[in-house]
Amino acid sequence: MSEGISVEELQLAARNHGMPLEALRFDVTPVGLHYLLIHYDIPVVDPETWTLEIDGLVEKPLSLSLEDLRSRPSLEVVSTMECAGNGRVHIEPRVVSQPWLLEAVGNARWKGVALAPLLEEAGLRDDAVEVLFEGLDRGVEGGEEQFYARSLSLSEARRDDVLLAYEVNDVPLPPQHGFPLRLLVPGWYGMTSVKWLARITALDTPFDGYYQRRSYRLRQQEDEVGEPVSWIQVRALMAPPGIPEYLSRARIVSAGECMLEGRAWSGEAEIDGVEVSVDGGQTWAGAELVQRSGGRWAWRGWRFAWNAEPGEYELCCRARDDAGNVQPLEPPWNLGGYVNNAVHRVSVTVVE
Amino acid sequence: MSEGISVEELQLAARNHGMPLEALRFDVTPVGLHYLLIHYDIPVVDPETWTLEIDGLVEKPLSLSLEDLRSRPSLEVVSTMECAGNGRVHIEPRVVSQPWLLEAVGNARWKGVALAPLLEEAGLRDDAVEVLFEGLDRGVEGGEEQFYARSLSLSEARRDDVLLAYEVNDVPLPPQHGFPLRLLVPGWYGMTSVKWLARITALDTPFDGYYQRRSYRLRQQEDEVGEPVSWIQVRALMAPPGIPEYLSRARIVSAGECMLEGRAWSGEAEIDGVEVSVDGGQTWAGAELVQRSGGRWAWRGWRFAWNAEPGEYELCCRARDDAGNVQPLEPPWNLGGYVNNAVHRVSVTVVE
Repeated sequence: MSEGISVEELQLAARNHGMPLEALRFDVTPVGLHYLLIHYDIPVVDPETWTLEIDGLVEKPLSLSLEDLRSRPSLEVVSTMECAGNGRVHIEPRVVSQPWLLEAVGNARWKGVALAPLLEEAGLRDDAVEVLFEGLDRGVEGGEEQFYARSLSLSEARRDDVLLAYEVNDVPLPPQHGFPLRLLVPGWYGMTSVKWLARITALDTPFDGYYQRRSYRLRQQEDEVGEPVSWIQVRALMAPPGIPEYLSRARIVSAGECMLEGRAWSGEAEIDGVEVSVDGGQTWAGAELVQRSGGRWAWRGWRFAWNAEPGEYELCCRARDDAGNVQPLEPPWNLGGYVNNAVHRVSVTVVE
Repeated sequence: MSEGISVEELQLAARNHGMPLEALRFDVTPVGLHYLLIHYDIPVVDPETWTLEIDGLVEKPLSLSLEDLRSRPSLEVVSTMECAGNGRVHIEPRVVSQPWLLEAVGNARWKGVALAPLLEEAGLRDDAVEVLFEGLDRGVEGGEEQFYARSLSLSEARRDDVLLAYEVNDVPLPPQHGFPLRLLVPGWYGMTSVKWLARITALDTPFDGYYQRRSYRLRQQEDEVGEPVSWIQVRALMAPPGIPEYLSRARIVSAGECMLEGRAWSGEAEIDGVEVSVDGGQTWAGAELVQRSGGRWAWRGWRFAWNAEPGEYELCCRARDDAGNVQPLEPPWNLGGYVNNAVHRVSVTVVE
């Protein structure tokens, strides 16, 4: 990992909250510990005057109040969300953007209305090819002044688990999670789930905005088009065992049985297994998967009983999913520093 | 401000959340936006088995469950809390610890039981000189393995607004704010308000632990004893106007009337006034103070109508309190990088 984070990166780290990894011990991430990536400022929205507009290539444009949405049948989805830039600081050579270590994740219970019936009600026309989601957060990136906006293909937009969420963990969305309404696309990286949602527009051509065309694409060079970032890649993380030293975060573990534990998830397929190494990745052993409380899109707990003897260790964990995806040992590189799902490594000192 | 934040500092920034300054627009800081400084790991506490012990130099030691505490008369205090290290990154030469810019603040409504009647009930003995508060968060700092702990003098501990809080903003304390119980000492920097409180002990000599003896003291050199950090110094902050550029956080403001707004607070005395400068501090004009909703310990809103003409500006704000304290133009230096309450400066570009 490189030294020398810039003040610009620190400014981003100070406002984009990570989930401290000991919070992997909570099955549902408490409000205030879930990661946040907020490109511009958090808008202050008056729920009395706010409306959601559904327009573009639809037969019957809709304008819905928060009350309208809350009076419809509701749907709950427990979903693990991760930022596409999680792990960026561990990538060499360094990519300058929000400097995530490994904390850009959370697992929450989102409640709202299903998107598909709303699109149905608005009468999506046959010439529509994409659906655009526009937030109220406005700023400049890539030289363009814009509201944050991302699109989905019709097939993704019509998935029956895609939500317009107005609650998280049984409370109204807090401002930082998109009050009063956000999109939630389970299994996709977080940039897809547009916050402070104000407008949904059916388009006849693929959306060409900054966050679709330039950002969130896997490219090796600037002049490539690149593949769009979409499904969350397989990953396991470990709650660091023992106790930390304040400044270095070095971990001290007492000798004896130590229960290593963490969570694993993959947008692409179900988690098939988690392995643990206590020797830096030379040898691996299977961890126990814990029964999941939240359905397909929730992370899966795992644990591994380690008989810790005094010494220095590099603990590792890695997950595989049943589509055959396994975490790499080394970080993949791309221009945006996206989807680094390399094996998690935690150095610990075991003392008598 | 120096370049070159270390990975150790970034690790701290990733786990200790700041309040993005646009959230100054909320009178009460929503849960999840209040700043957090967590020295070690967030403990996972079972409220069914947790108790608060009150012992040491008392006639009648108490062991209280959360239910015991909740069944007592409750007290609410709206209080602005700030980290003693807020502004540390702006201090030259650099001090290495949690690298706060200016986001280490929040204003919340805390509910719990008053401390003084509990001390009374336990029968504080005449030979007690201090009261020690010990949390469940354990780790290593200054080479010492310890639970986080801080003491108060008897006169501070007996203030009628000092709380043992079990709720914030009408919800049970989230884990990151000290669930199930924390101390709250309004007007003092946040290190005083011990989280995950487990034990209160009356002592016959001043507490000599790391966070009292070495840390949180104003020293110019290592061999000084130094004055302890205590009351929050006077400060005003501004919600950055206009819109940001993603990476640089540079601000773009549209020409015309622009309402500058923010909050001001002082632990030492009531806010007496806030001044604004639009020329980097050469000339100042008075801002309007907004009626406060929360009582003595809550921050005070302020606003200033600025007729913004195209150009580059350095906006500044500074507060004074009615004890005659005024914010300095330049950051004060001390070994710990504490209590830097220098004037807030925000660079903006005004465009047609």
